[in-house]
Amino acid sequence: MSLIVAISGSPSTPSRSGALANHVADDLRNRGFELASITVRDLPAGELLTGRTSDPTIAAAIALVERADALVIATPIYKASYTGVLKAFLDLLPQLAFTGKVVLPLVTGGTIAHVLALDYALRPVLVSLGAQHIVNGLFVLDKALAVSERGLALDADVEKRLAGIVDDFAGSVLRRATATGVLRTTP
Amino acid sequence: MSLIVAISGSPSTPSRSGALANHVADDLRNRGFELASITVRDLPAGELLTGRTSDPTIAAAIALVERADALVIATPIYKASYTGVLKAFLDLLPQLAFTGKVVLPLVTGGTIAHVLALDYALRPVLVSLGAQHIVNGLFVLDKALAVSERGLALDADVEKRLAGIVDDFAGSVLRRATATGVLRTTP
Amino acid sequence: MSLIVAISGSPSTPSRSGALANHVADDLRNRGFELASITVRDLPAGELLTGRTSDPTIAAAIALVERADALVIATPIYKASYTGVLKAFLDLLPQLAFTGKVVLPLVTGGTIAHVLALDYALRPVLVSLGAQHIVNGLFVLDKALAVSERGLALDADVEKRLAGIVDDFAGSVLRRATATGVLRTTP
Amino acid sequence: MSLIVAISGSPSTPSRSGALANHVADDLRNRGFELASITVRDLPAGELLTGRTSDPTIAAAIALVERADALVIATPIYKASYTGVLKAFLDLLPQLAFTGKVVLPLVTGGTIAHVLALDYALRPVLVSLGAQHIVNGLFVLDKALAVSERGLALDADVEKRLAGIVDDFAGSVLRRATATGVLRTTP
Repeated sequence: MSLIVAISGSPSTPSRSGALANHVADDLRNRGFELASITVRDLPAGELLTGRTSDPTIAAAIALVERADALVIATPIYKASYTGVLKAFLDLLPQLAFTGKVVLPLVTGGTIAHVLALDYALRPVLVSLGAQHIVNGLFVLDKALAVSERGLALDADVEKRLAGIVDDFAGSVLRRATATGVLRTTP
Repeated sequence: MSLIVAISGSPSTPSRSGALANHVADDLRNRGFELASITVRDLPAGELLTGRTSDPTIAAAIALVERADALVIATPIYKASYTGVLKAFLDLLPQLAFTGKVVLPLVTGGTIAHVLALDYALRPVLVSLGAQHIVNGLFVLDKALAVSERGLALDADVEKRLAGIVDDFAGSVLRRATATGVLRTTP
Repeated sequence: MSLIVAISGSPSTPSRSGALANHVADDLRNRGFELASITVRDLPAGELLTGRTSDPTIAAAIALVERADALVIATPIYKASYTGVLKAFLDLLPQLAFTGKVVLPLVTGGTIAHVLALDYALRPVLVSLGAQHIVNGLFVLDKALAVSERGLALDADVEKRLAGIVDDFAGSVLRRATATGVLRTTP
Repeated sequence: MSLIVAISGSPSTPSRSGALANHVADDLRNRGFELASITVRDLPAGELLTGRTSDPTIAAAIALVERADALVIATPIYKASYTGVLKAFLDLLPQLAFTGKVVLPLVTGGTIAHVLALDYALRPVLVSLGAQHIVNGLFVLDKALAVSERGLALDADVEKRLAGIVDDFAGSVLRRATATGVLRTTP
């Protein structure tokens, strides 16, 4: 069973991008994948900002990324790019930490004017980490996402596009598992 | 007298990019500018990562940026981009916090392969903050920079290129001061 | 009197971005600048595509860029970036052809989703050409621009923002002329 | 049998990036794929620059891209980005012309300082065309590539990295063929 780790890089809580990542994680868990998650803002802040990778909580988060077969990476767009919080965590990873992994980027933003930040800002960083396949991600407008105690409500068209993207991601993770022979039996 | 604020975004100490920023700040101070500096890794980490701009230290740093006529922004390149530490601070600034300001970007990296990160990753973020003029910055290879207790030693050709860039920046800050009528008398 | 050259990179005619460049050129001429223009689609196509810079028409266009004190560069956004037509001309220029020049980028697009292409795609290319100052440019939605025989009609808010941007550009060109001592007397 | 189309975007001939694309095409043909190629500089120049997609030669090139299961896209880096020649052809394609296709980007440059142009400049354009999977491409230094009448000679380490990249690309094309059920019998 492939392990998928969802990384949420929002500095705020509740967070639209975090809720979106959880929503996708639930969907993937229902499809039989093993899921784990990292919320960067909950990591020890001083250790994160000064790069102390020996801290046990941070070391565990890095090890989780290394064990993962695939990653969901969620961030809001601030100042035309991903958040500093997300990047602070990515900065702690080994240079080619994403080697052999499939990555699904999920991005939220207040205006459609930010949409290219996914491909011009976030994707090059993910590529530099050696990702084997970064599938086409999704940009979701803040107003198409409502977060409440009962979970996430998405506009119908976003829900539909998201389903297609998660299908594509899940298929890519499964093909990778087959190709690399790491397919384990589901319990 | 124009106020120039140097922002250092390295997570480590001592830091090559931080030493470079200090070196440029000393040069600018000698030219008669008022200088102040912000080392992001020294700000309260938990408050920074969770966006608590009401924290007095963070609020003071933001206010310093707003008062500045010009900024020196220094970062190493990690994972094909600026650091998360730097971006975490920029994320806390008002949307157009750099309006009317002149900005000098200074970037260090372990290999010349990272040089385009200045213009493809950092500059678009600085533009999004509304900077009036982002002068041509400098990328310095780690090996051309030696940091010791006696300060920074730069390779001769880097020193020369840096001098030209600081000249250009200082000239732009002075022209801006004249143009906007904010030129104050030097003490 | 400073020479400003407007370069239009649209493959089609009539062209919204070309009309926008002409509109800005007229404004600048009225302010006392000397203006010239290059419409890339009108250059000899075979020579352009195969880099024959010895062709007299192409050589004249390159010489015009080199003589310019400042440039207006206009392109629509296609496929998340500037046009191939524009880039084909920029490819023929000497490596640092924009050294010492002030540049105003003008971009048009069918959707606001393309707006970051100005800063993530076009600006890095202009920086690589050595531009001394690339002022904040303008992205204009196709629907805010009507081109007819009587010229260009712009939405009122675009007209207003454009005026501010042209003011900033003109000021920068004049300051540059003063600073470099190339200010010539206007006839 | 999957059809792979190699697109070469160099304005010059002989061309290092073009020779690299041919080299990879030969390798892929030997693996049993059907290969075709488009050299943009050989298309009718005037029609290309003015977007006349009704021209029979250009229409045939566009149709070839649409029929392709996968693409090899080769360009030198000029002025911190792909060539205008390449982009002029991409500009003529339908908005999502790469939907469902696997893409291998190959880039050559005179200095390692250009390497990030692959991921910051070219990849976002390929993503905007809807590519299903853009595999990790290769940046090759001009001096690691010798083009002569007997073909292409590559430095040994480049040859080795290229082989790994072509393996990955071929594997992705085959998995795509299986997944989408378009696997046709080899003759």
